[in-house]
Amino acid sequence: MELIEGDDGTRPILTAMSEIAGQLAPIIAGNYLGRDPMGKGVLLGGVAGVAPASVVILGAGTSGLNAACAFSGLGAQVHILDRDLNKLREVRRHLGNHVTTLFADQNNIIKSLKFADVFLGAVLIHGRRTPNILKREQIAQMKPLSIFIDFSIDEGGISETSRPTTLADPIYIEEGVIHYCVPNITAGVNRTASRALANILVDQLRTIGQLGVKAALEQNANLRRGTYLLDGVCLIPELIEHFKDRKSSR
Amino acid sequence: MELIEGDDGTRPILTAMSEIAGQLAPIIAGNYLGRDPMGKGVLLGGVAGVAPASVVILGAGTSGLNAACAFSGLGAQVHILDRDLNKLREVRRHLGNHVTTLFADQNNIIKSLKFADVFLGAVLIHGRRTPNILKREQIAQMKPLSIFIDFSIDEGGISETSRPTTLADPIYIEEGVIHYCVPNITAGVNRTASRALANILVDQLRTIGQLGVKAALEQNANLRRGTYLLDGVCLIPELIEHFKDRKSSR
Amino acid sequence: MELIEGDDGTRPILTAMSEIAGQLAPIIAGNYLGRDPMGKGVLLGGVAGVAPASVVILGAGTSGLNAACAFSGLGAQVHILDRDLNKLREVRRHLGNHVTTLFADQNNIIKSLKFADVFLGAVLIHGRRTPNILKREQIAQMKPLSIFIDFSIDEGGISETSRPTTLADPIYIEEGVIHYCVPNITAGVNRTASRALANILVDQLRTIGQLGVKAALEQNANLRRGTYLLDGVCLIPELIEHFKDRKSSR
Amino acid sequence: MELIEGDDGTRPILTAMSEIAGQLAPIIAGNYLGRDPMGKGVLLGGVAGVAPASVVILGAGTSGLNAACAFSGLGAQVHILDRDLNKLREVRRHLGNHVTTLFADQNNIIKSLKFADVFLGAVLIHGRRTPNILKREQIAQMKPLSIFIDFSIDEGGISETSRPTTLADPIYIEEGVIHYCVPNITAGVNRTASRALANILVDQLRTIGQLGVKAALEQNANLRRGTYLLDGVCLIPELIEHFKDRKSSR
Amino acid sequence: MELIEGDDGTRPILTAMSEIAGQLAPIIAGNYLGRDPMGKGVLLGGVAGVAPASVVILGAGTSGLNAACAFSGLGAQVHILDRDLNKLREVRRHLGNHVTTLFADQNNIIKSLKFADVFLGAVLIHGRRTPNILKREQIAQMKPLSIFIDFSIDEGGISETSRPTTLADPIYIEEGVIHYCVPNITAGVNRTASRALANILVDQLRTIGQLGVKAALEQNANLRRGTYLLDGVCLIPELIEHFKDRKSSR
Amino acid sequence: MELIEGDDGTRPILTAMSEIAGQLAPIIAGNYLGRDPMGKGVLLGGVAGVAPASVVILGAGTSGLNAACAFSGLGAQVHILDRDLNKLREVRRHLGNHVTTLFADQNNIIKSLKFADVFLGAVLIHGRRTPNILKREQIAQMKPLSIFIDFSIDEGGISETSRPTTLADPIYIEEGVIHYCVPNITAGVNRTASRALANILVDQLRTIGQLGVKAALEQNANLRRGTYLLDGVCLIPELIEHFKDRKSSR
Repeated sequence: MELIEGDDGTRPILTAMSEIAGQLAPIIAGNYLGRDPMGKGVLLGGVAGVAPASVVILGAGTSGLNAACAFSGLGAQVHILDRDLNKLREVRRHLGNHVTTLFADQNNIIKSLKFADVFLGAVLIHGRRTPNILKREQIAQMKPLSIFIDFSIDEGGISETSRPTTLADPIYIEEGVIHYCVPNITAGVNRTASRALANILVDQLRTIGQLGVKAALEQNANLRRGTYLLDGVCLIPELIEHFKDRKSSR
Repeated sequence: MELIEGDDGTRPILTAMSEIAGQLAPIIAGNYLGRDPMGKGVLLGGVAGVAPASVVILGAGTSGLNAACAFSGLGAQVHILDRDLNKLREVRRHLGNHVTTLFADQNNIIKSLKFADVFLGAVLIHGRRTPNILKREQIAQMKPLSIFIDFSIDEGGISETSRPTTLADPIYIEEGVIHYCVPNITAGVNRTASRALANILVDQLRTIGQLGVKAALEQNANLRRGTYLLDGVCLIPELIEHFKDRKSSR
Repeated sequence: MELIEGDDGTRPILTAMSEIAGQLAPIIAGNYLGRDPMGKGVLLGGVAGVAPASVVILGAGTSGLNAACAFSGLGAQVHILDRDLNKLREVRRHLGNHVTTLFADQNNIIKSLKFADVFLGAVLIHGRRTPNILKREQIAQMKPLSIFIDFSIDEGGISETSRPTTLADPIYIEEGVIHYCVPNITAGVNRTASRALANILVDQLRTIGQLGVKAALEQNANLRRGTYLLDGVCLIPELIEHFKDRKSSR
Repeated sequence: MELIEGDDGTRPILTAMSEIAGQLAPIIAGNYLGRDPMGKGVLLGGVAGVAPASVVILGAGTSGLNAACAFSGLGAQVHILDRDLNKLREVRRHLGNHVTTLFADQNNIIKSLKFADVFLGAVLIHGRRTPNILKREQIAQMKPLSIFIDFSIDEGGISETSRPTTLADPIYIEEGVIHYCVPNITAGVNRTASRALANILVDQLRTIGQLGVKAALEQNANLRRGTYLLDGVCLIPELIEHFKDRKSSR
Repeated sequence: MELIEGDDGTRPILTAMSEIAGQLAPIIAGNYLGRDPMGKGVLLGGVAGVAPASVVILGAGTSGLNAACAFSGLGAQVHILDRDLNKLREVRRHLGNHVTTLFADQNNIIKSLKFADVFLGAVLIHGRRTPNILKREQIAQMKPLSIFIDFSIDEGGISETSRPTTLADPIYIEEGVIHYCVPNITAGVNRTASRALANILVDQLRTIGQLGVKAALEQNANLRRGTYLLDGVCLIPELIEHFKDRKSSR
Repeated sequence: MELIEGDDGTRPILTAMSEIAGQLAPIIAGNYLGRDPMGKGVLLGGVAGVAPASVVILGAGTSGLNAACAFSGLGAQVHILDRDLNKLREVRRHLGNHVTTLFADQNNIIKSLKFADVFLGAVLIHGRRTPNILKREQIAQMKPLSIFIDFSIDEGGISETSRPTTLADPIYIEEGVIHYCVPNITAGVNRTASRALANILVDQLRTIGQLGVKAALEQNANLRRGTYLLDGVCLIPELIEHFKDRKSSR
């Protein structure tokens, strides 16, 4: 479903789910920063005379931007990193000097890992497995009981230490760092997520209802782009390519 | 400790703890609104096309104002009620038209209970047991699985359905409503809270260290106001009065 | 004139006029909400302890967005509806959580009609008559003396109950609802509107002055797009099509 | 009723009515700036490339501050004048650099009269007739068809050219300037105003209901301060003084 | 280097340098407005009761927008002019009613020269010498000791009175106006500028390092666009054209 | 003049001068951060991908708050320290999460000296010489070519390394740190400062003009508080005390 495209070439469902995920980040982080008995006992926004928590977001796409906005809305000190300067400009335009933007080179990533109370991986590389940007020894340099949230876990995660967890048992500790790696966190706010999906899909569903699946897919290229198999034929060029390679490499 | 006063007659420790509590409210609410499997599955801030959650705050004192600011920072739709119009003015000054202010008469309280996804009791009546402002049948009119947080639980709570819980086991359901009634929620962010306390107490502790407890209390009226018993003598006028009454009433 | 296009395919004059119209909406609404002796007697922004007016805007294009911004600037509680989620995202980016965005399905439209003190129709379907989205019985469900402003009245209006009025006699009541359906409301602020037009047209007028009308139209495709007839020949493809159909259908 | 005081020495009803009046100012001004056929045809907030209207507010008390906030919320260019620098500081704190603050000396008043599209008199001198700060020849220097709103008209008005009008027939032209001098403009939004009053008076009315008028007045000094005559005896010191003077001066 | 293009056709280095230049404008202006003994002695942001300085920015591109944002952040009263209404719209979207947008016709330019304490020329016409938009007699109409900053000085300057200066000796006075015409002002904040450059160039430099200059230029069209000569052959079409014209005109 | 008091016990001239000084701080800092050839070459606000400068302000009184607001308006990352938590609360209320507030204990002061690009001493202890809060070895820990501005230099300065300079020759380097210690920096914006003074003094001057100095001082206690000697008699109790002590100590 996430592969369905809109007329403008963007993926509306992916966008909506990323907006939701981004906004959930401070709820998750705030919960594990403060949770009795394990967490650090730190308040995201601080109080007069006590500094707020330091939040680092790697990736300034839709989920990163939404997370930056929500963390900043709670008063946390936010740093956001990306290699795309235009995305960082977009962040500055939205959030002004509430948020520090940094170029995502190795140097800045390592530095920010060290001062982060919360580190959010919000990198998304379409259609490919996310590379392990962070090594185990880098995670080990984070402060004890700081929070590492990996939104890229669906695609393999951005850290060597990432492995998928569930909403029912969402965290584990590695290298002294609390890892939160739930693949599909929007399921936690299913009512909001369902409505967001419905708003996007309602027209397509109506078309399918009227024409039947096959005719609808023929007529509507956007829908087709979200279809893996039709009558046993694969419709996703990347997948075809992928399996062709595997075949020939045997 | 919460009875110690500053030179301006306010209670600095109570203020700091209320600021912290207020900021924790959206973390708590966001967690139980979305939590798998029980919660409503609602995102506090909504997304484009899906309305945000409705948050009602009863009481526009320090904790209410801080909660309003934090909920609003996450994009929730906030209503705040108080009988003191100057406090509501203060809210409007801070948060402008992000937040709706309502006079806390019975009519508005009942109405807002019905549309609230989150209802936060942030009423504080100094030195007295909070009256049970909300009746069981009113709580029962709230929407199923909405959240009721009672910050007044230390003083008895604002609802007939309130009873103290703990950080380890913080919620229970009554009348279909999730109750969160942890008396001392700032303990959950103990590091931030301790620093806030230290900033306030450092000078007093230094005085005590230099002079000894007794001389320090003699010299410093603010400290004395936070002292229950000194050499077996009660120093809190309200307590003396209270026990005198009980004695004579026997 | 509204059909003239800029190099980027947008219609600059239509845009400018929509910006003006949107900003006029709260002046109109505020006037009829409060007007002696007929109006509801409600202040758009409320005061401490009294809720602000509820404003619903159908359509998040240029005029809807400008209206949302202006109503929100006066402290009203604004809901804005559209079927285009990207437009709603644009609203959230501009106005943050001051404004609630809703998907414009039948359900949300009906619900919001019921709680609106002001309902603004800001739908524009280019080059076609606006369909009567609202039925008479739906308008009848609005609160007595609430305001219905129809910016689509030039194209036929969005309600069965809409009919054009004039700046001199701008309102009428149907189903207990005050209707304001002035087709060309920017004429009310003619000085600002004229300057906005002049800023857009000054270069085109200069070209026409130098080359004469005919040569200017030949050279400038944007201008041509705003020309109905040249030497007795119709230049607007949609119109040609339209009349061809009518001919053949006879 | 406006003389009743709160425990803090302020006059809560006067404050609430001033808040309402201030917020009404841009509705009034916007209406007469743009009204067909007489007004200047100017949009308060301007559009891209066309400057907004210039609004000058004389007096930075409750009504002036609320008007500044509302005008500024619509995008007008606001100047506010007062002789009390602390009030101007309060404006800067609220509205930052949206609004220019000027010391209300003769020089600044005259200068700002000349560039104002809207001039709002929001001066209030408690318990005394407002002096005619503005002379006829000064009003005559205003731009043709600019708007002059006099909120002090209840106390005599701030201009020689001011004379009371009514909500039914609110304006007249003198020296080419549209004068709006309705004494009790909050009556135009009677529903909001009544609720605001009720929120303030509800406790007093309950006391009166329980004790009767006389006992209530004896018990409650605040109420007494709003009572002109009780059993034929005048309770307002200023009035007693005033009539004593008149007597003795005969 | 400034001619290198990104994939989206923009020039990332020019953009970054313009962002820096724009933010430097209020530091420069504030310094010469206040400098002892020569300047006007005016504070950019004013104080309660004293109006802020008037800043006029000609050109709403990257440097103009950044300057508007920074001047406005210090509390100055900013007017920004451009002939492109979409750029002015962008300013309004960013900075709301903090800033007045004006169409850059002769009339508005002359008017704003007269009231400006600071006039910033931020016009950029790609690849061509900036025309002398301002005549000497217009500069002479500016207030004595007002500041004229010319960001277009690299391309010839926007005023007849502009001539290049240096960071070491940055200003001169003509017609009573302080001229600041340093061609490469970003050199003053070389550390920030170098990092900004490095962030943009790092990938290109890596490619050059791996492939050698020639292969890198062959592969990468963006880099090629920033190359004047390769093996004695000119790669910039405009330059070729330019010299061809000169040849043939001899 | 700075000792003259207003009716509310504050010192209006001191307040106005502190507001001006605070707003000048980023102009000074920006100038010496970037100045060729000596400064660090850092831009206060950073750009997309490059972090802004770190500014530390010691003291959250009028000048500190105004400086925080102005630095933050330019996009710098601001930390402000004070021992008075209510002042820090005031900062949070004004500037929200743009600014980090820290309790001014030794620990936080030392830490923030180390990361500051700009350190502003904005401490004021009324009527007494400011204690040397900062030792030479602490200043030596600051980063090379960072800026140290001492607003307390009139009262002796807050650092062992502080010594008064002049507007004509404002800086010197000690321990690798650029010191800016001009005692009366508001003289640099003399026009704005004079108007601010005039607005405060105009009524007093009128009284003096009408009554003569002596009668005016007798009548007006506020004026008297700003008078050192009248007819050879000292009027300032602290001074009398001071010289009595010195006499007796001989």
